Amino acid sequence: MRILQCVPNFSEGRSPSFVRELTTVLAQFPVKLLDVSMNKDHNRADVTFFGAPDAVEAAAMALAGRALELIDMRTHKGSHPRMGAVDVVPFVPLRGMTMAEAVEIARHFGRTFAEKHQIPVFFYEEACTTEARRSLADIRRGEYEGMRRKLQDPAWIVDAGPQTLNEKSGVTAVGARMPLIAVNVNLHTQDVEIAKKIADAVRHAGGGLRFVRAIGLRVEDKGITQVSMNLMNYHKTPIHRAVELVKIEAARYGVSVKGCDLVGMIPIEALEEVVSYYLQIPGFTSKQIIEYYIPPD
Amino acid sequence: MRILQCVPNFSEGRSPSFVRELTTVLAQFPVKLLDVSMNKDHNRADVTFFGAPDAVEAAAMALAGRALELIDMRTHKGSHPRMGAVDVVPFVPLRGMTMAEAVEIARHFGRTFAEKHQIPVFFYEEACTTEARRSLADIRRGEYEGMRRKLQDPAWIVDAGPQTLNEKSGVTAVGARMPLIAVNVNLHTQDVEIAKKIADAVRHAGGGLRFVRAIGLRVEDKGITQVSMNLMNYHKTPIHRAVELVKIEAARYGVSVKGCDLVGMIPIEALEEVVSYYLQIPGFTSKQIIEYYIPPD
Repeated sequence: MRILQCVPNFSEGRSPSFVRELTTVLAQFPVKLLDVSMNKDHNRADVTFFGAPDAVEAAAMALAGRALELIDMRTHKGSHPRMGAVDVVPFVPLRGMTMAEAVEIARHFGRTFAEKHQIPVFFYEEACTTEARRSLADIRRGEYEGMRRKLQDPAWIVDAGPQTLNEKSGVTAVGARMPLIAVNVNLHTQDVEIAKKIADAVRHAGGGLRFVRAIGLRVEDKGITQVSMNLMNYHKTPIHRAVELVKIEAARYGVSVKGCDLVGMIPIEALEEVVSYYLQIPGFTSKQIIEYYIPPD
Repeated sequence: MRILQCVPNFSEGRSPSFVRELTTVLAQFPVKLLDVSMNKDHNRADVTFFGAPDAVEAAAMALAGRALELIDMRTHKGSHPRMGAVDVVPFVPLRGMTMAEAVEIARHFGRTFAEKHQIPVFFYEEACTTEARRSLADIRRGEYEGMRRKLQDPAWIVDAGPQTLNEKSGVTAVGARMPLIAVNVNLHTQDVEIAKKIADAVRHAGGGLRFVRAIGLRVEDKGITQVSMNLMNYHKTPIHRAVELVKIEAARYGVSVKGCDLVGMIPIEALEEVVSYYLQIPGFTSKQIIEYYIPPD
């Protein structure tokens, strides 16, 4: 079975009716909705769903179309970086598909979406057309307010759609990527500077692990100091290696790890490495898990 | 969905045609065959299958009936303890079922089997009628050759069937239990006495963990010294605790762990504890695993 996941991010996180609209649209397609997250501060909503590739692409197109009707970027405020109503549309190959196939679908989606709605589109991550556009942060730099100017820069010729800003809907990034794993490591310290130093040591940007992005921060409402990591390739930089490296750097400050949070979903393959490492079981595979053979209810 | 597993053990492990006979029988039922293991030294075969409770009970009855036709205990030799042609029939509740329901099915199966084939049956583990029969080892002590005498002992009134030995087929134990986890911990030593001392320290019988059974042994053909453990209740004695305790005791001899083998299948729940412990993620659940929502191929 070929299974593709899509996690579009929309610039509307305050209106409950918006989420109802999205789920109503999704219900018309043979896809499975996994999660809807809204954040009021960010003023942003993420939808996670999966299914057969064709159904997922069609559902994503319908969702994006509805979101464009409902969102006006000219009045959007939010603390999360954003550049468009349909801000980012990543496709994630989950089973029976190669990354190359996901890239093809992402680009097909991006071109169709751009033409249909006259929106500038950039391809990012594995779908990027040049290394300078691999990172979403680079594409989005300047945010919605800076996009008019950015689109006049010869370095930012769009991958699809018009070269001029869509005032109402902004700019959209469409990409393909591996499942991303989000791990927060909570520290036994109140000192956010320590968390920041650890984050810098373990992340790629600071000379750390190649597929780790990390920031150190205080989560004020929970009274927690943490290193918040995104693992971009859990095969090449597995969870245990990132977490153990955080512990090793924390030890330099006499700080120990209080606990970790795993945010959202992870693929079972990412846990194979965890079990294999800590229990020293070489080649442990999820085929040894009974549930591998039992269909979920 | 209610899913029951059955893992009958038969006293025939040398004839390939025997396994073919069993799989032919199983194919007539709506159950899923997970594994067939034969061992020539043990002269014993295990079959693992699961499905809806009624189908599993019916399939187990048909399998056992065919095995009785093919096996004659009067000529059986093997290194593994055994007392009957259909030696043990454990039922394991996998999903949507309580242990009480599995016990009920085990006893129903045991009574029907005993009457139909005139074979003495004892109920063991969770299906036991008295604590003295909880342990299979206690029931089987004396093996086939000692059963005639054992059945004359007032302490061993059968739970079902005749009180006299069935010469051809021996005695059968029928039970219900949790999924059993088999872990071998391989040691960096050639000294089997060290493995035996560690096994004794970690197992319940030696004052160790309540739900651990363990032996220390040499696996000559692999040149390995190991502590071989069965975890009888992975909720109350999780994998990591047993493995870490082996490491702690091994350290007393300056011996480290080379690696572990996980034998056969494990439930995903047993891995939740492993991930939760080593990555310090309190309350980690398999509902965070994407594959939880994707039917297996």
